[in-house]
Order: sequence, then C-alpha cells, then structure tokens
Amino acid sequence: MSEQTFVVAIESVGRSEGKMRNVITSKFARPGAETWEMATDEGAFHGGDGTAPPPLAYFATGLVGCLMTQIRAFSQRLDTPIESVQVTARIKWQGRQQGSAPYRTEPVGIEIDLDIESLADTILLGVLIEAAKQGCFIEQTLARENVISHRLKDGERWIDV
Amino acid sequence: MSEQTFVVAIESVGRSEGKMRNVITSKFARPGAETWEMATDEGAFHGGDGTAPPPLAYFATGLVGCLMTQIRAFSQRLDTPIESVQVTARIKWQGRQQGSAPYRTEPVGIEIDLDIESLADTILLGVLIEAAKQGCFIEQTLARENVISHRLKDGERWIDV
Repeated sequence: MSEQTFVVAIESVGRSEGKMRNVITSKFARPGAETWEMATDEGAFHGGDGTAPPPLAYFATGLVGCLMTQIRAFSQRLDTPIESVQVTARIKWQGRQQGSAPYRTEPVGIEIDLDIESLADTILLGVLIEAAKQGCFIEQTLARENVISHRLKDGERWIDV
Repeated sequence: MSEQTFVVAIESVGRSEGKMRNVITSKFARPGAETWEMATDEGAFHGGDGTAPPPLAYFATGLVGCLMTQIRAFSQRLDTPIESVQVTARIKWQGRQQGSAPYRTEPVGIEIDLDIESLADTILLGVLIEAAKQGCFIEQTLARENVISHRLKDGERWIDV
C-alpha cells in the first residue's frame, strides 16, 4: 500500500496585556478553523499578577495531552482496547545566570510514566506506546533539534533576527 | 561575578475521560505549589467531542507565551523598555501513513514573527530578542534533541518502554 502524507499546521497570535499576562489565540491553518483563546501569566515572583497559568503549564499539558490522545486513537487502529490511561510527566529545566543579567536556560530531563488499564498484555501495550510516540507531534518535535526562525518587524518590513 | 544555577521543574498528571478528552493537572515541583487544571479534546474528525482545545493549541500557546514572557521580563533587566509585543507563531508538522495504520509524525518548520512597540532601536531589540530566546525554556528545549524516557506500569512495578 502506498504511503500518504498530510500536513498539520497551527498558527498562534499572542498579545501582551497587563504586567506579564499574554492572551494567545490559536487555530489550525485551514479555512474556517475554530479559534482557541488562552491566557498566560506569571506569579508575583516573576512580576506577574497570577491571573492565568504560566507558559510551562501549557507546554506540559500539550505534551501529555498529545501522547494520551495518540494512545487512545491508535488503540483503536491497532485493535488493542484500553479502558483508561493516566500519564504523569516530569519535565525539568536548568537556568544559569550572573547577577541580574538575563539567564540562559536548558532542558535537563523529560520523564513520562504511563499507567494503562487494559486487558491487553504488556507486549501489545508496548507496541501501542511505541506507535503513540511516533504519532505524537509534540514528542517527535522534542526528539529533534529544531531550527526556529525569527523575524522582527522593522517599520514596514520584516528582518531576520 | 560567579554564575548561579537554578532548577525549574513541572509535573503534569493527565487522566482520560469521555472519548478523547483528557484532564491534565500541572504544578511546579515545589512544596505548596499551585495546581492548574486544563482539558484537551479532539474534534469529531479525530473521534472526539470538541469540548476543549486540542493538545497542539496548548503546545503553541506555551511556546508563544514563554517567548513573550521572557521578552517582557528581560526588557526590564536589559533596560530596553517596550510598550507592547505581539508574537505570531506558525508551526507545521507532517504525517506519513499507510492505510489506517498508525501514522508517523515529524516537525516541518517553526516560524516566529515579533512585532514590538518600543522607542528602542532595532539593534537593542535584537539583543533583547536573543536574550529572550536563550532564556525561553521552551525554545531551548525545542532547539535540542531531547531524550524522553517512558515507563509503563506493569502490575506493581514500572518497566522501561
């Protein structure tokens, strides 16, 4: 059977509000797509008002939700029925700074624990999990060294930064 | 001045509900941390009920919010005042599949446009953006090839998968 490809694209626009609050609208890049609006904020420690979850909570939610979704979707495709799934992710970063200069960050580790209620044996669940890893857009993005391009608006033109 | 390091860690626990809905609680890994609860779902196309945004919208929100937050935080540290910032991110993935087998995914591109309202000149804004990139936990994670470890609960023990 021949391989088919498809594209999934999302566009998010964030606008600054208040001290550290940002309101971000996201939609899939296709005509008539639904828009989701979410806000991020920081606690008082980081100069915010704590009106919304911090960006890292959204990031972690996306990763956990993506993997869970693919486990559930592929359990049907692989005919490996599951009753429920619980996923715990622990994500750790490190920052390095000198005085009050901007700090530099780096990831330290990402650990994911999967608790799947199913009558299927461990080997079949292993196959399901491997398929879910390969099918999880976010896991596959994190597994690669991504080049992120940035442009800054300078008057009427955009310059690479 | 000597370099100092600090750790930021988050723990997220997701539980499956309904057809494709997941409810995920996240908190920073420190005593007494606040908990944020967010739900993900899929549209009818992917077998869900559309009760909440999809995981990719959370992921994109996290990335955009993280970069915006560090631009605003570091604008103070670098004494480069800004009035407002608008960030647009376009993230694209590709999937490959044969028939109804589980598909494989990969990132195709991440583009970020920054529109910063400020009296500072473009060079200073470039310095600010570079600092924000280095200080954005999520950008730095995406820029690296991360090893994500997975464990599956098997009776009373955890096995690596």
